[in-house]
Amino acid sequence: MNEDYYMNLALSLAESAAYQTTPNPPVGAVVVKNGRILGMGAHLKAGEEHAEVHALRQAGSEAEGADMYVTLEPCAHFGKTPPCADLIVEKGLRRVFVAAIDPNPLVGGKGIEKLRAAGIEVKTGICEKKAMELLTPFFHFIQKNRPYVTIKTAVTADGKTAAHTGHSRWITSDAAREDVHLLRSRHDAILTGIGTVLLDNPLLTSRLPQGGKHPIRIVLDTHLRVPVDYNIIQNKEAKTIIFCASDAQTKKQRALEEEGVTVIRIPYMSIDAVLDELGKMNIMTLLVEAGAEMNASFLDIGAFNRLVMYMAPKLIGGKSAPSSFGGLGGSSMDEALDLTFVSIDTIGPDVKIVMEKR
Amino acid sequence: MNEDYYMNLALSLAESAAYQTTPNPPVGAVVVKNGRILGMGAHLKAGEEHAEVHALRQAGSEAEGADMYVTLEPCAHFGKTPPCADLIVEKGLRRVFVAAIDPNPLVGGKGIEKLRAAGIEVKTGICEKKAMELLTPFFHFIQKNRPYVTIKTAVTADGKTAAHTGHSRWITSDAAREDVHLLRSRHDAILTGIGTVLLDNPLLTSRLPQGGKHPIRIVLDTHLRVPVDYNIIQNKEAKTIIFCASDAQTKKQRALEEEGVTVIRIPYMSIDAVLDELGKMNIMTLLVEAGAEMNASFLDIGAFNRLVMYMAPKLIGGKSAPSSFGGLGGSSMDEALDLTFVSIDTIGPDVKIVMEKR
Amino acid sequence: MNEDYYMNLALSLAESAAYQTTPNPPVGAVVVKNGRILGMGAHLKAGEEHAEVHALRQAGSEAEGADMYVTLEPCAHFGKTPPCADLIVEKGLRRVFVAAIDPNPLVGGKGIEKLRAAGIEVKTGICEKKAMELLTPFFHFIQKNRPYVTIKTAVTADGKTAAHTGHSRWITSDAAREDVHLLRSRHDAILTGIGTVLLDNPLLTSRLPQGGKHPIRIVLDTHLRVPVDYNIIQNKEAKTIIFCASDAQTKKQRALEEEGVTVIRIPYMSIDAVLDELGKMNIMTLLVEAGAEMNASFLDIGAFNRLVMYMAPKLIGGKSAPSSFGGLGGSSMDEALDLTFVSIDTIGPDVKIVMEKR
Amino acid sequence: MNEDYYMNLALSLAESAAYQTTPNPPVGAVVVKNGRILGMGAHLKAGEEHAEVHALRQAGSEAEGADMYVTLEPCAHFGKTPPCADLIVEKGLRRVFVAAIDPNPLVGGKGIEKLRAAGIEVKTGICEKKAMELLTPFFHFIQKNRPYVTIKTAVTADGKTAAHTGHSRWITSDAAREDVHLLRSRHDAILTGIGTVLLDNPLLTSRLPQGGKHPIRIVLDTHLRVPVDYNIIQNKEAKTIIFCASDAQTKKQRALEEEGVTVIRIPYMSIDAVLDELGKMNIMTLLVEAGAEMNASFLDIGAFNRLVMYMAPKLIGGKSAPSSFGGLGGSSMDEALDLTFVSIDTIGPDVKIVMEKR
Ligand SMILES: [Zn+2]
Ligand SMILES: [Zn+2]
Ligand SMILES: [Zn+2]
Ligand SMILES: [Zn+2]
Repeated sequence: MNEDYYMNLALSLAESAAYQTTPNPPVGAVVVKNGRILGMGAHLKAGEEHAEVHALRQAGSEAEGADMYVTLEPCAHFGKTPPCADLIVEKGLRRVFVAAIDPNPLVGGKGIEKLRAAGIEVKTGICEKKAMELLTPFFHFIQKNRPYVTIKTAVTADGKTAAHTGHSRWITSDAAREDVHLLRSRHDAILTGIGTVLLDNPLLTSRLPQGGKHPIRIVLDTHLRVPVDYNIIQNKEAKTIIFCASDAQTKKQRALEEEGVTVIRIPYMSIDAVLDELGKMNIMTLLVEAGAEMNASFLDIGAFNRLVMYMAPKLIGGKSAPSSFGGLGGSSMDEALDLTFVSIDTIGPDVKIVMEKR
Repeated sequence: MNEDYYMNLALSLAESAAYQTTPNPPVGAVVVKNGRILGMGAHLKAGEEHAEVHALRQAGSEAEGADMYVTLEPCAHFGKTPPCADLIVEKGLRRVFVAAIDPNPLVGGKGIEKLRAAGIEVKTGICEKKAMELLTPFFHFIQKNRPYVTIKTAVTADGKTAAHTGHSRWITSDAAREDVHLLRSRHDAILTGIGTVLLDNPLLTSRLPQGGKHPIRIVLDTHLRVPVDYNIIQNKEAKTIIFCASDAQTKKQRALEEEGVTVIRIPYMSIDAVLDELGKMNIMTLLVEAGAEMNASFLDIGAFNRLVMYMAPKLIGGKSAPSSFGGLGGSSMDEALDLTFVSIDTIGPDVKIVMEKR
Repeated sequence: MNEDYYMNLALSLAESAAYQTTPNPPVGAVVVKNGRILGMGAHLKAGEEHAEVHALRQAGSEAEGADMYVTLEPCAHFGKTPPCADLIVEKGLRRVFVAAIDPNPLVGGKGIEKLRAAGIEVKTGICEKKAMELLTPFFHFIQKNRPYVTIKTAVTADGKTAAHTGHSRWITSDAAREDVHLLRSRHDAILTGIGTVLLDNPLLTSRLPQGGKHPIRIVLDTHLRVPVDYNIIQNKEAKTIIFCASDAQTKKQRALEEEGVTVIRIPYMSIDAVLDELGKMNIMTLLVEAGAEMNASFLDIGAFNRLVMYMAPKLIGGKSAPSSFGGLGGSSMDEALDLTFVSIDTIGPDVKIVMEKR
Repeated sequence: MNEDYYMNLALSLAESAAYQTTPNPPVGAVVVKNGRILGMGAHLKAGEEHAEVHALRQAGSEAEGADMYVTLEPCAHFGKTPPCADLIVEKGLRRVFVAAIDPNPLVGGKGIEKLRAAGIEVKTGICEKKAMELLTPFFHFIQKNRPYVTIKTAVTADGKTAAHTGHSRWITSDAAREDVHLLRSRHDAILTGIGTVLLDNPLLTSRLPQGGKHPIRIVLDTHLRVPVDYNIIQNKEAKTIIFCASDAQTKKQRALEEEGVTVIRIPYMSIDAVLDELGKMNIMTLLVEAGAEMNASFLDIGAFNRLVMYMAPKLIGGKSAPSSFGGLGGSSMDEALDLTFVSIDTIGPDVKIVMEKR
C-alpha cells in the first residue's frame, strides 16, 4: 500500500457523496495504522459531521499514532461543527496526508498550520489533480460566490431542439432521458425560463429507479405568467423559486406563495443578477434546462462552465426549427466561445457529449 | 493458416485500392499452394486487369493445383477483359474461396457455376460480412444505378455551419480539414450548389501531403450563374460538370465549355434527376458538400446514405445562423429521418461523427 | 441511481477493508433515502461494529423509511455484537437489498427471515457474482474450517526457483518483490518450512511504503531445528507459530517460548493436520512461501486454492536446479492437477501469473 | 494519404509473404501517382521477381513520374534478377520512399546512390522501426551467416516438459498445438535431437487446416542412431537433414540416403558448427524443438534469439521431471541469461509467452 492507494480510497468515499454536501465540499477521509484501516468516512450533509469525524469515531482510541488520508485540508474554524484540525490533534494522529488545499479564505492553510504546530507531520498534494476535479464546482462557488453552471441540451444530429412547429417529444431515447434524471439529481438547482414552462409544463424532478435527490426548481418569469395549476407549482416533491421583475403582480405572487413557492423580485432581471442571488442562497451547482434564447443569454456573458449535449442520430431539418443557442450570435467564427471536449459516450442509440469552457 | 487468414489478406488488398476502381468494385485475390503464397493482387482501375489476373500472373505455372481466395465471385462475362472464371479453369486451380456473390445481373452466380462445372471446388461466404461492408457502395450503385451518397458537414457544437453573417472560415481545425481532403479523395465526385460556389469560391480538390485523387466536381447551377473566372472553372486539376435548367443561357454554356467544363441541361432540375444522370456517368460514390438548402433537398427525398459531421467544440449562437439542414423540415419528431451512429473519432480538437441511414 | 450503483458502492467499501476482518467476512453497507446517502461503512475488525452499524449510526434518525444496501445478509445471532437484523428493524428501514446469503449455519437466511417478519421488503442477489468473489476465502473457511490457501512462487522463465547451487537472490525485480509484500499483507498468515528458514533466514514480514499488516508467521519444523537467533524468532513485528512433532525437544520449545513464539506439537505432522489447526485458530487466509518439497506436499493432497507465480524473463538452466514443485510428481500428464489462468500482469520487467484450482 | 499510409501498405504486403522468401528478405512495394495506386506487390520467392518488379509491371507506362514506397532499399546488383534500381530509373519514377537500408554489403546504400545519381528524389527512414522488426531475422542472417534461432517449449505451470516418467502427451491444448504448426510453417528449418526423435518418433511437419509450408527437418544424431522406419525418415512431405560425427557408420548413412535423407558429417559436433553449416545452406530461420539438454547447449553459448513458451495451467510436480533447460546451469542468479517479454497471449486454456534475448 502506498499513499496513492489510501488517498484514492478517500477520494472514492468523497465522490460517492458528492452532489449532496452543498454548500460544503465533498470530502473523504481514511485512518490507517500498520496497514490496517481503522476508520473511513465521507462528509454526507452540510451541518453534519465532517469526513474526518466519521473516520476518527470508527478508529476510536486506536487513532493515536495513526495516519489520516483526507481529500481536502481539515478545517480550522468553528462552523456548525468544531474544527477537525483540533480533533486530529486531540486524537494524537502521527501523520496527515492531504490531497487539496482549501481555497476558502476562512480556512486557507490554517488547518495545516494548526496540525504542524502540534507536531503532526503533514504532506500535501497527494492525488491532487483528481481531488481538484472533484472539487471544481466547490472552488468555483467559493471564489465567485455563484453556482457552477452546466447547460444541458438535447438535439438532433442537425443540431435542432425541436421541429419548426416546436414539437420536441422525444428527440432522445429513454436511456438518454434517464441519464438526464441522474444529471438533475447531481445538481442543487435546475433553472428554466417561463417560455419552456408554458410550452412543456415540465415537472423538472429527478425520477430515478431507486429515487433521486430533487434539485430546487428555479424559473425566470419576469411577469409571473406561470399558471398556478402547472406541474412546477402543484408538484411538491421539490422546492420551486421564481424570479420576477420588481413590477410583477403582487396578487399573483401571493397566489404562488400560497402554493409554497418562493418568489424573488429583482430590480433588473439578468442572468448575472440571478446567479448572484443563487450564490447567496448557497446553491453550488446549477443545471440550465432552457430554450435557445435563455441559453444564448448565458452564452453572451460566458456565464456557464459546462455543456452537456445529448445527440440523437436523426435529422429533422427546418430552417426555422430552433437550435440550442439562439440570440443574435457572434458575427464571425473568431467570436465563437471556445470549449473543449471532455467526454463522448454512447447512451442507447444516442451519444452524450460533455464540453467545458476553456 | 486458415481460410479467414487468406481471405482477410485478399480483403486488405481490395481495401487498399478501393475508391479508385469505379464503376468496378474493389476486389482482392490471393493464390496459395502448400502454405505458400504464389500471387496476390487487387483490381486497380476499371478497364485494367482484375485482381485474379494479377495474382495468377505472379503464380505462373505453379498455379496448377493451387487455391485462390477472392473477395468477390470471379466474373464470367466478357467485359473489357476476358472472364476471370475461364482463366481460373485454364490455369487448373483446385479450389476457389469466395467472400461475396456478385449482385450484378450479368454475373449473378454464373462465375461460380462455371468454376464448378469445370470440377473446381468452390466455397462461398468466407468473411462475407467484412466483404459486404467494403462492397456496399458498389452494390448500391449496381442495384439503384445511382451513386452512394455521403453528406459532409462541419458544425459548431450548437449545430451551426456559419455565423448569422454567413462567416464560416474556419469552424474546424487544420487536422479536421485535412481529413476532409482524404474524404474527397475517396469519392468519385463531389457535389455542391451554386450558392456555395458564389459564397466561398472553393477549389473542391483533394489536397493531401502525398497527393490525392481529385473527385469530379459537380455544381447544380440552374441559371448558369457561376462566373467563368471562379476557381471551380479555372482550376484544371479536376474535371467540372455543371447541371443547369433547359432554359439556361447558351452563350454562358459555350463560355464554360471553352474552359473545359461539361454542361448538362436537365428538363426539371431535381436531386432525383441529377442522381440518375450521375449514375449513367458511372459515378459510384458522391460526396455532397453543400449548404443547408441543398442538404435539405437530399433529406426531403431520403436520397443519401451516410452523413459525416465534423464538430468543433465552440459555440457561435444565433437564431438565424444556418444549420446543416434547412428547408421546412419535419413537423413533428416522428417525421425525423432515423440514422445510426457508425463511429465517433477525435481529430485534433474536433470530433468526426459518422452516421448511416438505417 | 439504480440498485447496482449503490450495491457496487457497498462492495467497494467491503473490498477496501477486506484482508483485515478475519475470521469475519468483509462486508460493506450503505443507507440511502430519496437519492441521498445517509450513511456508509464497512466491517473493519472482528469483534467491532458490523458494516450495518457504522452506516446506521451515520444515518441517525433519518434511517427511518430508508433503504439499506448490504453485501452480505445481516446477522441474526448474538456474537460479539448484537444482531444487525434487530437493529435494522428497530431503526425502521423500509427496504434491504442483499448481495450474498451467508453460508454460515448460524446465520443461513435467518437474518432475512427476521427482516421480512418485521415487514421489511428484502431483495437478494444484487451484484451477487462480485460479492461471491470477494467472499470466496470466507465461504471456504466457513465450510471447510480451514484457511483458503495461496501458494506463491518466484521462478525464472525456465521454471527454476534457484540455481543448482541453491542461489536465488534475486530472481525477480524490486517491483515484483514489493508486490509480494502487498500479497503478504493481504493474508492472515504465511507458512514456510524449516528448510527455507535455515537457507534464507527470512523475516517474512510485509514491508510496504505506508506500512502493511503483518501476517502471522507459521513454520513447520518437526524437530525444532530453528536457531533462536534467527530473524523469524528475533523480529517481533509479527507473531510466530512453530509446528513440531510430539517428540521434539522440550528444552528448545521453552527457549522459543521465552522469545514469545508459540510452539504447537502435532502427533503426526502433515499438511492436513496443520491446516486443521490453523482453521481452529481462525486463520482464514494462508500464504505458502516455501520450497519445492513443501509445495509438492500441498499439491499431492490438492490442499491449496490459488497459485501466484512471479516469472522473471531470464534463463538459469540446470538439470538439478530446483523447480517450484518437487516430490515424486505425477506419472503421466493425465495426473496433473488442473488449474485455470485468472490473470497475467506485467510488474516491472517480470510477469505475475495467477491461477486457481478448477 | 501521407507517407506512412503508403509505407504501411507496403509493409503489410511484405509481411504477408514473409517466411517464404529465404534467403531473401521479405519486401513490399507500392507505386502511387496522384493519389492513385498503380501497382503493388511483394517478393514471394527467392529467385523470382522482387517486389518492385511486380509493382512496376502493374503500373505499366503510368509509372513515369510516379512515386514508389518500398520497405527495403532497392537492389543495385545483378543477382538472379536484374537490379531493381536500374528498372526504377528506366521506368522514370519521380520519387522513391524507403523504410530500411540493406545491411547486405553487396547492396549497402548502392541502390539509393544509383537512384539519386539518376535524379530521383529518395527519402529513407519512413516507418523504419516497423520495417526493422520485420527484417530482424534477415539482418541477423546477413550479418552472422547463421539462422535466426527460436527455441520452442511447452511446459506445465511448474515449468515441466514431461512427468518424471517422461510422459508428456499432451501438456498443452489442441489450440496451442495448432499454433505450433503455424510457428513451424514460419520457419525454414526445425531442429531436434536424436533423443527427442527416439522418444516421440515425431513427424515435425506443419499440419494446418489450409496447408502449411513444411520446414526442413534437422536432426543432430552423432552416431546415426535414428531407425530408418521412423516418421522423420519415412515421411517425405518435408526434407530431412541429419548431422553426425565423422566416425558414424557409413552403412547407416547409405541406408538413410536411400530414403532421400541428407547426411552431413561434422568433425566436432557442436551447436556452433551446426549453425555455421545451416547458414551456408541459406537457412535463415531455425526453430528448435528439442529436449532439455539440447536447449541447454543453446543456452550455454547464447546461440538463440527468441524463446516461445506455451504454458498449460496444470501442475505435474516431480523433482526429477524435466524442465525446458537442463545442463549444469548457472551457479548464481547473476549468471542467468537476460531476456525480455515480447508478448503474452491466451491460446485456448493455455498462454503463449514470447521472449527475446536482450
Ligand atoms: Zn472539518
Ligand atoms: Zn474478372
Ligand atoms: Zn451484523
Ligand atoms: Zn531488387
